[in-house]
Amino acid sequence: MLEHRINKLRKILREKNLDAFLVSNFYNILYLTGFKTLNSDEREAWGLITAKNVYLFTDSRYLNIKYQKSNIKNTYQISNIFKTKLITSEKGLNAHLKEIVNEEKIKKIGIEGDDLKLNEFNKLKQELKSVEIVPTEKLIIKQREIKDEDEIEKIRKACKIADECLTDIIKTIRVEQTEKEIAFRIEFWLKEKGHDLSFYPIVAIDKSSAIPHYSTKGGNDKVTKNSLILVDFGAKYQDYCSDITRIIFVGKPTDEVVNIYNKLFDAQTKTLQYLASINLRGCTGKQIDQYCREKLTYPHSTGHGVGLQIHEYPKISFTSTDVLLPNQVVTIEPGVYLENKWGMRIEDTVLIKENKQVEVLTQFSKQPLIV
Amino acid sequence: MLEHRINKLRKILREKNLDAFLVSNFYNILYLTGFKTLNSDEREAWGLITAKNVYLFTDSRYLNIKYQKSNIKNTYQISNIFKTKLITSEKGLNAHLKEIVNEEKIKKIGIEGDDLKLNEFNKLKQELKSVEIVPTEKLIIKQREIKDEDEIEKIRKACKIADECLTDIIKTIRVEQTEKEIAFRIEFWLKEKGHDLSFYPIVAIDKSSAIPHYSTKGGNDKVTKNSLILVDFGAKYQDYCSDITRIIFVGKPTDEVVNIYNKLFDAQTKTLQYLASINLRGCTGKQIDQYCREKLTYPHSTGHGVGLQIHEYPKISFTSTDVLLPNQVVTIEPGVYLENKWGMRIEDTVLIKENKQVEVLTQFSKQPLIV
Repeated sequence: MLEHRINKLRKILREKNLDAFLVSNFYNILYLTGFKTLNSDEREAWGLITAKNVYLFTDSRYLNIKYQKSNIKNTYQISNIFKTKLITSEKGLNAHLKEIVNEEKIKKIGIEGDDLKLNEFNKLKQELKSVEIVPTEKLIIKQREIKDEDEIEKIRKACKIADECLTDIIKTIRVEQTEKEIAFRIEFWLKEKGHDLSFYPIVAIDKSSAIPHYSTKGGNDKVTKNSLILVDFGAKYQDYCSDITRIIFVGKPTDEVVNIYNKLFDAQTKTLQYLASINLRGCTGKQIDQYCREKLTYPHSTGHGVGLQIHEYPKISFTSTDVLLPNQVVTIEPGVYLENKWGMRIEDTVLIKENKQVEVLTQFSKQPLIV
Repeated sequence: MLEHRINKLRKILREKNLDAFLVSNFYNILYLTGFKTLNSDEREAWGLITAKNVYLFTDSRYLNIKYQKSNIKNTYQISNIFKTKLITSEKGLNAHLKEIVNEEKIKKIGIEGDDLKLNEFNKLKQELKSVEIVPTEKLIIKQREIKDEDEIEKIRKACKIADECLTDIIKTIRVEQTEKEIAFRIEFWLKEKGHDLSFYPIVAIDKSSAIPHYSTKGGNDKVTKNSLILVDFGAKYQDYCSDITRIIFVGKPTDEVVNIYNKLFDAQTKTLQYLASINLRGCTGKQIDQYCREKLTYPHSTGHGVGLQIHEYPKISFTSTDVLLPNQVVTIEPGVYLENKWGMRIEDTVLIKENKQVEVLTQFSKQPLIV
């Protein structure tokens, strides 16, 4: 699986006349090598893909055999398809790169211009004077658009977990609960089972739901006997995300609310059908966005790719030129927001398939859900 | 408080002949403006400090009055000491900067070279042709070394919360519990009360504790009737971190373990006393590190600064030239690790004060703790 991803990248490198590619981004290292460090904020590992080898540079914590043994169960496995190089205070990344550049006669090395910091780039340039360093943009993240079987299976599982979580959480919703309390129950449910959140859940009750990206961390609005609750969250399973939004009604909703809910449901469902009906390869994210937006007005994109990160490519937005292709996983999430009243959004994570098919991975019911 | 921080930065800018400074780092924006976005991974806000003004650039989600009203309780307050500029798909950061550069006749603008991505820098350079763009390194993070009263109060509280958490968690430790279960209990305890983790807790039982940076996420080792448990964690209170490590003995520890624990305790305590005894301003992190390392051998630093992030300046390490000063908050955390047996570490978060004083902020007992 990893070899397949690396070979795909090597093909791109040959097309770009690059002898090697330095991978700095946390998620791209994870994607290509299966290796992840404890902290995505601090530079603790680097990857280098050459024509012959895949190198992984990291410190003694991760390369220490003791550490590895203890962490095999923790999924930090150092695969044997790549060569590991120990980073120490005496011998840093650049010193290792110099050696490899000489050994493998590397002339041109690509870097992730959208991830590498300016000062890191300048130091690299200073140290590797004999090499041409070529900044690239979105190289691996665009490759990550198309999911392989292993990734699809993990996202499918992540969606299933989110469905199960929502099923259980809904049963525990009570009058007087706050938004952040419900969000916390979701977090607790997932983490207790060893999973994780894709992002901090949005739980927005009544007026709060009219704000498309409501922040629930301090959300103290409470469930009443007649509330509309917007729940937007995702589960992470083995590093892969899911994303789902549902509307929960406490007590019988008014006819106005039901009518608009049905309109939203209709727009979201039809967009899924449209996505299944189009000829892929000729269709852009913009086209899907426009189709849905003809039916409803909302101040955000219609959808986005999902994978190791919650926001990936393709974008399904007003300006997106990303082409839709089989084995992409995207969300479809139109909404309706009425200022100072309430807002609703319905969102599924879906897999685009060959032969005009889509598989809706989040299967939780979209019928008006009254608790 | 914010004005004081901004004026301090302005002084540095004048010394460096910079007319303005573009702040891209999530934590630096939070430090200078009190404003934070939902996601530290995605660029959702920027700051610009000029001689006259402080600008905050962000999108409609955050500048929307509705959003702000709903989020005042969530601490996302847009202060009135700065001017806000709306980022849209039509008018991005660079377009705003162009206007301000003209209005305020800016010639030289500093950027955070250790935060700005190479491609972001290149686009900025392309757009702001009339301006000299000067990469800097560690400018604000070095300013953040010295904590002001508000920061100290928050860190003090974060330490107190960690102490309380540990007191409660220890009571619930039982034979057969796994490492990740105990870590989860810590997380749950903090989050239930509306706090957060400074970092994912390290809970390492027996052999696992011999690995200085054990990863507990998949830690399935279990508490036995005779276990040594290393717990390294921190609470976050209003964005400020604490950091504490304690050793918990289940059952009576062997004489060998007690002897080494006492040696470690002695080294850690003496280092705190040493820190209180030295003449500040002439002392570096290296000097403290060496003092502690004369007594014990361990494969990591003796300590680090703590603040909005868990790892800040000054570093207290083998090579640190950072000067120790009053109102810095640092950890002192020596350890002893015996391969395949066990490891121990004692860590406190301490405030360095004037007049040869330190205040140990984490007050949880360091007496051998047997449960």
